[in-house]
Amino acid sequence: MIRARLLANGQEFDWQGQTSGIWVDAQAATDTELAQLRAAFPLNRLALEDVLEVGHWSRAEQYPEHAFITVRSYARPDTDDEFTERLSIFVFSDAVLTLSSHGTLALAQVWPMANGREALNSPHEVTYELLDHTADTFFTLADTLEAQVDKLEERVFRNEQKNPVADVFELKHLITQARRLANEAREATVLLSRYATATPADLVRYRDVQDSFTRAVNRFEGLREYLTSLLDLHLSLQSQRMNEVMRTLTAVSVIFLPLTFLAGVWGMNFEHMPELRSPFGYAFAWSSFLLIGGLLAAYFKRRGWW
Amino acid sequence: MIRARLLANGQEFDWQGQTSGIWVDAQAATDTELAQLRAAFPLNRLALEDVLEVGHWSRAEQYPEHAFITVRSYARPDTDDEFTERLSIFVFSDAVLTLSSHGTLALAQVWPMANGREALNSPHEVTYELLDHTADTFFTLADTLEAQVDKLEERVFRNEQKNPVADVFELKHLITQARRLANEAREATVLLSRYATATPADLVRYRDVQDSFTRAVNRFEGLREYLTSLLDLHLSLQSQRMNEVMRTLTAVSVIFLPLTFLAGVWGMNFEHMPELRSPFGYAFAWSSFLLIGGLLAAYFKRRGWW
Amino acid sequence: MIRARLLANGQEFDWQGQTSGIWVDAQAATDTELAQLRAAFPLNRLALEDVLEVGHWSRAEQYPEHAFITVRSYARPDTDDEFTERLSIFVFSDAVLTLSSHGTLALAQVWPMANGREALNSPHEVTYELLDHTADTFFTLADTLEAQVDKLEERVFRNEQKNPVADVFELKHLITQARRLANEAREATVLLSRYATATPADLVRYRDVQDSFTRAVNRFEGLREYLTSLLDLHLSLQSQRMNEVMRTLTAVSVIFLPLTFLAGVWGMNFEHMPELRSPFGYAFAWSSFLLIGGLLAAYFKRRGWW
Amino acid sequence: MIRARLLANGQEFDWQGQTSGIWVDAQAATDTELAQLRAAFPLNRLALEDVLEVGHWSRAEQYPEHAFITVRSYARPDTDDEFTERLSIFVFSDAVLTLSSHGTLALAQVWPMANGREALNSPHEVTYELLDHTADTFFTLADTLEAQVDKLEERVFRNEQKNPVADVFELKHLITQARRLANEAREATVLLSRYATATPADLVRYRDVQDSFTRAVNRFEGLREYLTSLLDLHLSLQSQRMNEVMRTLTAVSVIFLPLTFLAGVWGMNFEHMPELRSPFGYAFAWSSFLLIGGLLAAYFKRRGWW
Amino acid sequence: MIRARLLANGQEFDWQGQTSGIWVDAQAATDTELAQLRAAFPLNRLALEDVLEVGHWSRAEQYPEHAFITVRSYARPDTDDEFTERLSIFVFSDAVLTLSSHGTLALAQVWPMANGREALNSPHEVTYELLDHTADTFFTLADTLEAQVDKLEERVFRNEQKNPVADVFELKHLITQARRLANEAREATVLLSRYATATPADLVRYRDVQDSFTRAVNRFEGLREYLTSLLDLHLSLQSQRMNEVMRTLTAVSVIFLPLTFLAGVWGMNFEHMPELRSPFGYAFAWSSFLLIGGLLAAYFKRRGWW
Ligand SMILES: [Mg+2]
Ligand SMILES: [Mg+2]
Ligand SMILES: [Mg+2]
Ligand SMILES: [Mg+2]
Ligand SMILES: [Mg+2]
Ligand SMILES: [Mg+2]
Ligand SMILES: [Mg+2]
Ligand SMILES: [Mg+2]
Ligand SMILES: [Mg+2]
Ligand SMILES: [Mg+2]
Ligand SMILES: [Mg+2]
Ligand SMILES: [Mg+2]
Ligand SMILES: [Mg+2]
Ligand SMILES: [Mg+2]
Ligand SMILES: [Mg+2]
Ligand SMILES: [Mg+2]
Ligand SMILES: [Mg+2]
Ligand SMILES: [Mg+2]
Ligand SMILES: [Mg+2]
Ligand SMILES: [Mg+2]
Ligand SMILES: [Mg+2]
Ligand SMILES: [Mg+2]
Ligand SMILES: [Mg+2]
Ligand SMILES: [Mg+2]
Ligand SMILES: [Mg+2]
Ligand SMILES: [Mg+2]
Ligand SMILES: [Mg+2]
Ligand SMILES: [Mg+2]
Ligand SMILES: [Mg+2]
Ligand SMILES: [Mg+2]
Ligand SMILES: [Mg+2]
Repeated sequence: MIRARLLANGQEFDWQGQTSGIWVDAQAATDTELAQLRAAFPLNRLALEDVLEVGHWSRAEQYPEHAFITVRSYARPDTDDEFTERLSIFVFSDAVLTLSSHGTLALAQVWPMANGREALNSPHEVTYELLDHTADTFFTLADTLEAQVDKLEERVFRNEQKNPVADVFELKHLITQARRLANEAREATVLLSRYATATPADLVRYRDVQDSFTRAVNRFEGLREYLTSLLDLHLSLQSQRMNEVMRTLTAVSVIFLPLTFLAGVWGMNFEHMPELRSPFGYAFAWSSFLLIGGLLAAYFKRRGWW
Repeated sequence: MIRARLLANGQEFDWQGQTSGIWVDAQAATDTELAQLRAAFPLNRLALEDVLEVGHWSRAEQYPEHAFITVRSYARPDTDDEFTERLSIFVFSDAVLTLSSHGTLALAQVWPMANGREALNSPHEVTYELLDHTADTFFTLADTLEAQVDKLEERVFRNEQKNPVADVFELKHLITQARRLANEAREATVLLSRYATATPADLVRYRDVQDSFTRAVNRFEGLREYLTSLLDLHLSLQSQRMNEVMRTLTAVSVIFLPLTFLAGVWGMNFEHMPELRSPFGYAFAWSSFLLIGGLLAAYFKRRGWW
Repeated sequence: MIRARLLANGQEFDWQGQTSGIWVDAQAATDTELAQLRAAFPLNRLALEDVLEVGHWSRAEQYPEHAFITVRSYARPDTDDEFTERLSIFVFSDAVLTLSSHGTLALAQVWPMANGREALNSPHEVTYELLDHTADTFFTLADTLEAQVDKLEERVFRNEQKNPVADVFELKHLITQARRLANEAREATVLLSRYATATPADLVRYRDVQDSFTRAVNRFEGLREYLTSLLDLHLSLQSQRMNEVMRTLTAVSVIFLPLTFLAGVWGMNFEHMPELRSPFGYAFAWSSFLLIGGLLAAYFKRRGWW
Repeated sequence: MIRARLLANGQEFDWQGQTSGIWVDAQAATDTELAQLRAAFPLNRLALEDVLEVGHWSRAEQYPEHAFITVRSYARPDTDDEFTERLSIFVFSDAVLTLSSHGTLALAQVWPMANGREALNSPHEVTYELLDHTADTFFTLADTLEAQVDKLEERVFRNEQKNPVADVFELKHLITQARRLANEAREATVLLSRYATATPADLVRYRDVQDSFTRAVNRFEGLREYLTSLLDLHLSLQSQRMNEVMRTLTAVSVIFLPLTFLAGVWGMNFEHMPELRSPFGYAFAWSSFLLIGGLLAAYFKRRGWW
Repeated sequence: MIRARLLANGQEFDWQGQTSGIWVDAQAATDTELAQLRAAFPLNRLALEDVLEVGHWSRAEQYPEHAFITVRSYARPDTDDEFTERLSIFVFSDAVLTLSSHGTLALAQVWPMANGREALNSPHEVTYELLDHTADTFFTLADTLEAQVDKLEERVFRNEQKNPVADVFELKHLITQARRLANEAREATVLLSRYATATPADLVRYRDVQDSFTRAVNRFEGLREYLTSLLDLHLSLQSQRMNEVMRTLTAVSVIFLPLTFLAGVWGMNFEHMPELRSPFGYAFAWSSFLLIGGLLAAYFKRRGWW
């Protein structure tokens, strides 16, 4: 599907190969449509290869024919699924061409805005607005992931039996991915503003969107560090519980092993065991048990074992 | 609320749209006030967006219309709460405009100082003074956090049962946040001095305040590393205590399990157990117990188990 | 073996020392052949040393006589074996010379393509195409290794007894190697494009292949980080199982040690033990056993030990 | 206290405000003395603030009025105490002014050397010599700390019970501090040589002292890494001992639990237990004990448990 | 000892202060010899200090009088001992002077080669050749250390009782040292080629030797990372063995503690225990033992504990 707008007043029209003063948007372009676009615009071969390669990452380049940027972002940033989408922008001196497989969130927002209003009627202004809305999707995702980190934090602090490690692992992987994508988008924007032949006002805009991507990167980075700390805390709490378990086992064993031994001694069948005959023997035995057990318990109490 | 001062002599006056030789300060500006400011000063749209966005971080930019810096700092650095505030400064060639939602600590200190005295009567001098006082709030916070780290250190060295890990976790998070804010303020200052059209004397001042932010960053960094070492020390002491517990359990088990077995043997009911009839049987049994137990105890003693 | 093609139309011919407008490819060159090449082309001595040194890594240099790049890549990237191969390219202003010990995957693909078609008939275009196909072998390897990481992940999540650590270790080593080779290839390409006397169109091509190598590096880096997280997850799951084992041991010991002690007490042979004669003694004993055991079991149940 | 020397011949004289061809040294300057110095020399206000601020770190700046460097170093580097001192140097084109609270080790060494000899009679030469002697104090400290690391290493290898972790913690903190101070001194020197208006011969000298500070930094860095490895070794040895303890406990338990059970069985009071009446019953019991115990012991022996 | 060669034809001759067209080599120079050298050559004072300081590290500087490089390397790289040596080279426009305390491996190899042959008859060519042979000693050392890492790897995989941690610790320290020395040599070479007044051909040579040092650094870095992984693997295998030990202990305890309790119960001396009189009591007891023990064993079997 190919659609086009005049940059000057935003009016949509049926594209027939015009190449000046317009924004052309092609989604899921067929081979015929691609051929039309190549006939109308001098599209660099390497740029087009990047556009068509499934899974390509964010990248920018100043080709002799045009500036070029392709940016990968998340398709559903308000959920935690990993589905991504990509928008490629060809910036000519008097036209802008956007290519994508099924459109992106940013494109869906900016296309209706381009109704000829000021600050959205030059190729670089359109590019800036698209990148700025792309950056916003990363902020949405950061909010989504932050909410999940908060839930995990609560679980760790409530010290539940259910192990949070596998969930931390999954979430960390998501965050690392998001950080990588945001960083790649940032670097592409940096390259675009470094090499593209843009006015000072355009450069200020590109630095603004770079700053947005950088803030997104830093939020993801902060979330990742927080998650790492959270995992350390969980492991430490788990290890502390383990210590308590071992202290319990040791204290009970140390108290009852000697007592059981003594009971075993007085259960031996030697014929000559004078104390067995004494009328106070049994009372003496229980006194020994209580004394020894009590002393050991007091000792562990004083060492702070419970 | 909008208030204004003459830069030359510090005199306050009722601002009616003047734009030269003055410092205008607007706090919690209403829409009407914002419109007045925009009418008087050529405020860059992107800069204003950053000012109005809640939660924006520290940033600087040289816009065609003016230099701009916005700096986030702590509102109550003498406590450990995380509440932050932000001051935005528009630096024109002959005027300075400060915007904030409720003022900041630095602003409250510098506004009364601007009574026309030397070194505080040009836009860049006002900016420097505001940034310098902002940097001081980070030093105050570093003192606050240092005191808390010292308390935690004492707890770890006193080797209390109460687990310090959750507190270390909270404090580390605070310090990491503070480090990030100080670093972002530093980078904004670096950018301001790199791009702003300032005199060599202004640049020397900005490098001075950069140095202050850098020192703050390094103090937080040092605190964080110290906290990490402290946690390692705690874990190591805990693990050592665990080892002692296990050694106790093992020694007691190894001594009493054989003895209990022997007592069990002599408690068996076989008819033909000659030693049970011997008048010295019982004495022999106790001698065995003492000998075996003593040998094992001596062995553990020599291995240094207690 | 020495073979040659005309760059203009790709025609193969029998090389007799021609040095202009051609691509000469020498594989497993004999001393005689090397002497012929040195006689025809001004090959830099240091470059030739690098070519002939077994095990040399990727490197590029602009010698006074020619540009030079040598790139090491994997010979069988669709398997996980570590076998590598190397291709050395001498780029003259009007000729290109490739040297290798037994050819490489990239060479085998590009040689037949060089049939005079556009974008493959200058020395730098041949070099670009060879490097681009070399970069592709790293993507193939990344796919191979990704599949293996996935298998390991499944094993960890299924929580098998069979320890995955040794396999993680082997795979991590492979990935680290691959990351290093891809990174060295990238750096060589960067150096080639920085120093070589190439046209802007050549530079755009070299940046494209740099970007490919960078993506390969980042995929390997991502795989390595993922593997590290996976290992942490395994260790954490293992440690959790260990905790369960210890809890089981402790609970069973804490329940049965006191009961066994009590049974031992009532098995003692004192003559005066009134409860032994009571007709309800045995029932009382069992009641005690069940009560004590039940209380302890309920206590552990409430602490969530099973 | 203010004292002064002629740079040309090193002669000391009573300073009365002279500002050319001299080295003025002020220690613990009173307010009056400071006023005298400010009257004589154009001291930059920001530089003076840094000088007077207690606890300021190393820093250099090229002020419009003069070059300036302030360097913090250790007061007693031959001991391991943390006491530091600081020397501030104002470098004018024809005079040098040094300020400190109580002098420093370097100052005490260089002041007597400045007797007019070559290579010590210009402001930059004096500055170089002071910095060079300051760098030497870091080498002394590195020797001191190295000796302590060696002692700790011996303790770890002798595998003493006394836990070295707290000492490692203290020493690591000291080394980290020292590394930071040396690094800050190095960076100040780098800045001084980058901005100061110095001759090529001066620059060569400054690079020499930078190199000294870098070597100090790297020695501290090396010590810290060594200490980290040492701690890992200690933890690993401790964990190994723990393993041995657990193996001992397990082996003894696994051998004696079944034997004790068997003895308990034959100690039961059932009326119909034929083997109890057999004349070979007791011998058979002991044979069982020895056989079972021996088999289990052999099994553990073969598994290498002792 | 001082010896000299003509650079043009390599002829050795008795040095009497000549300073042009020659290579002078001084080893273990006496004070007299040093004075002779200083009289003949304008040796920079700071360079000479570095030469004479015992333990100085690798460094290069372009002094006004001459270029200078001093490189520390291993004296016996085919063994794993830590003994190092150092060679200092003064590069004049028409002469080269080498100083060392007892010669170095590289010097011993290059001196006889300097027989006037091409590519070894200018000061920079001699310097290059010396540095190149020095780099080779690091490759030899890398081979030596690689062989030791391989041995340790085998030990870890054979899973021996003998703890490899102390050996890993020693070897890691050696490798870290080697990496540092190689890196310092590399940086010195970089500095030499950056500042020295050398021809393009000389610069290509210096970049070649830099590349060699970089490869050495990376081999040591790779070895260190491998060793770290190996240690992790060992710890993981050790921890797994520990888990098996604990599972054994727990299973045996959980099976035999209840059985021993039951045997104790039937060993009690209550008068009214009806089952003791039953003719099937003993058989019932054994049936209980086997049933309970069997069920528990089956349970552990199913949980995969052995
Ligand atoms: Mg990463
Ligand atoms: Mg990345
Ligand atoms: Mg970041
Ligand atoms: Mg990172
Ligand atoms: Mg970061
Ligand atoms: Mg971090
Ligand atoms: Mg770590
Ligand atoms: Mg940051
Ligand atoms: Mg950070
Ligand atoms: Mg820092
Ligand atoms: Mg620092
Ligand atoms: Mg850090
Ligand atoms: Mg740091
Ligand atoms: Mg650090
Ligand atoms: Mg690496
Ligand atoms: Mg990377
Ligand atoms: Mg990394
Ligand atoms: Mg990375
Ligand atoms: Mg640091
Ligand atoms: Mg360092
Ligand atoms: Mg280093
Ligand atoms: Mg380092
Ligand atoms: Mg470091
Ligand atoms: Mg390191
Ligand atoms: Mg290092
Ligand atoms: Mg490296
Ligand atoms: Mg590397
Ligand atoms: Mg590295
Ligand atoms: Mg490293
Ligand atoms: Mg690494
Ligand atoms: Mg680690």
